[in-house]
Amino acid sequence: MRLGFLGGTGVEGRGLALRFAAAGAMVTLGSRSIDRAARAAAECDLVLGKEVTGAAVNEEMLAHSEIVFLAVPFDKALGAIESYATYFHPGQVLVDVTVPMVFSGGRVEYLEQEGRSNAEILAAGLPTGVELVGAFKTIPARLLAATARPLECDVFVCGDSKYAKEKTMEAANLIPSVRALDAGPLSGARILERMTVLAVRLNRRYKSHDARFRVIGI
Amino acid sequence: MRLGFLGGTGVEGRGLALRFAAAGAMVTLGSRSIDRAARAAAECDLVLGKEVTGAAVNEEMLAHSEIVFLAVPFDKALGAIESYATYFHPGQVLVDVTVPMVFSGGRVEYLEQEGRSNAEILAAGLPTGVELVGAFKTIPARLLAATARPLECDVFVCGDSKYAKEKTMEAANLIPSVRALDAGPLSGARILERMTVLAVRLNRRYKSHDARFRVIGI
Repeated sequence: MRLGFLGGTGVEGRGLALRFAAAGAMVTLGSRSIDRAARAAAECDLVLGKEVTGAAVNEEMLAHSEIVFLAVPFDKALGAIESYATYFHPGQVLVDVTVPMVFSGGRVEYLEQEGRSNAEILAAGLPTGVELVGAFKTIPARLLAATARPLECDVFVCGDSKYAKEKTMEAANLIPSVRALDAGPLSGARILERMTVLAVRLNRRYKSHDARFRVIGI
Repeated sequence: MRLGFLGGTGVEGRGLALRFAAAGAMVTLGSRSIDRAARAAAECDLVLGKEVTGAAVNEEMLAHSEIVFLAVPFDKALGAIESYATYFHPGQVLVDVTVPMVFSGGRVEYLEQEGRSNAEILAAGLPTGVELVGAFKTIPARLLAATARPLECDVFVCGDSKYAKEKTMEAANLIPSVRALDAGPLSGARILERMTVLAVRLNRRYKSHDARFRVIGI
């Protein structure tokens, strides 16, 4: 399974790439700059103890990836999609991991965007034939990067394309101690994005950085 | 700890009362009809194997309860608060467990109410001095009633009164295998109520009735 990371040099993209590479997937970190991509890939390889992390400019990464993870800050995501619109190809799956949150005065709030989730807003901006799913939204980025520690949680996957959801769940299930769950339609991202706000609040309240969810009973 | 249940004869109220009574709390089921309250209490006593469940008309239950659980359908909750407004007393804690959901065409959706949670709408209708918290929203009612089975999950408690939250968390922690978590301000009910929609969707997708949440990492 060939996975690409748009915005692959940030904490979230790198953390995801590390988890997938450790699980045996082929990963390519994308960046605007080939030097930055190569540097981030080399750092991943150091952690993994083997040379397996690919690096490319975003255009090239997009040409060769079945699943692309959109791992840029939430307010840069729509711009990134628009910039690279002509490089996506039909049948490709785009995984949106963004969460629109605002921090102010020591509090964190969900950024309301006229009732729509960030995932729905991004999906509306995609070229035809590219299917977007929301996933990994509730997993702390820093924990993803801490590969020595097991994730031990569920990954909620929402989307309106059955194919794209299944493909993403198949990928997520490669990661040890992770269970991918079908969280329903893309509008379910309204729930998942808000759950991350809850996780951040719980982290602050209970002095942790790693709050994440597991569903009991299924 | 004296706990009362407004709408105590429904599945949710009875389930909660059973869990608390089994944990040693003093519980009183309230109803408009003393006969209905007494019948529900007798059924609880049967399950518990001892005569411990109190029954009263709602007015009397309200006079004697430190914490009142509002366990009526979400669209009857505001009416119930208004009907009994003069029977609440300052310092009393009202626990809202309602979730505004609509089922249609085999799908479940969160009922949007101009961006506000049901908990916030109810809080605005309360007499001065009565503090509302949102809690137990994500716990399946039928599982609460199945006292032979452990809950094994977290109870998220949100509210704007520190006192009311602590009191509710203290009560929730009486129940074995439950961990009460401070889920932040009352507006956090916007998250918790939607999480129940996710749980219902997961139940349908994975043929369960018991999906509920546990937070890992804190």
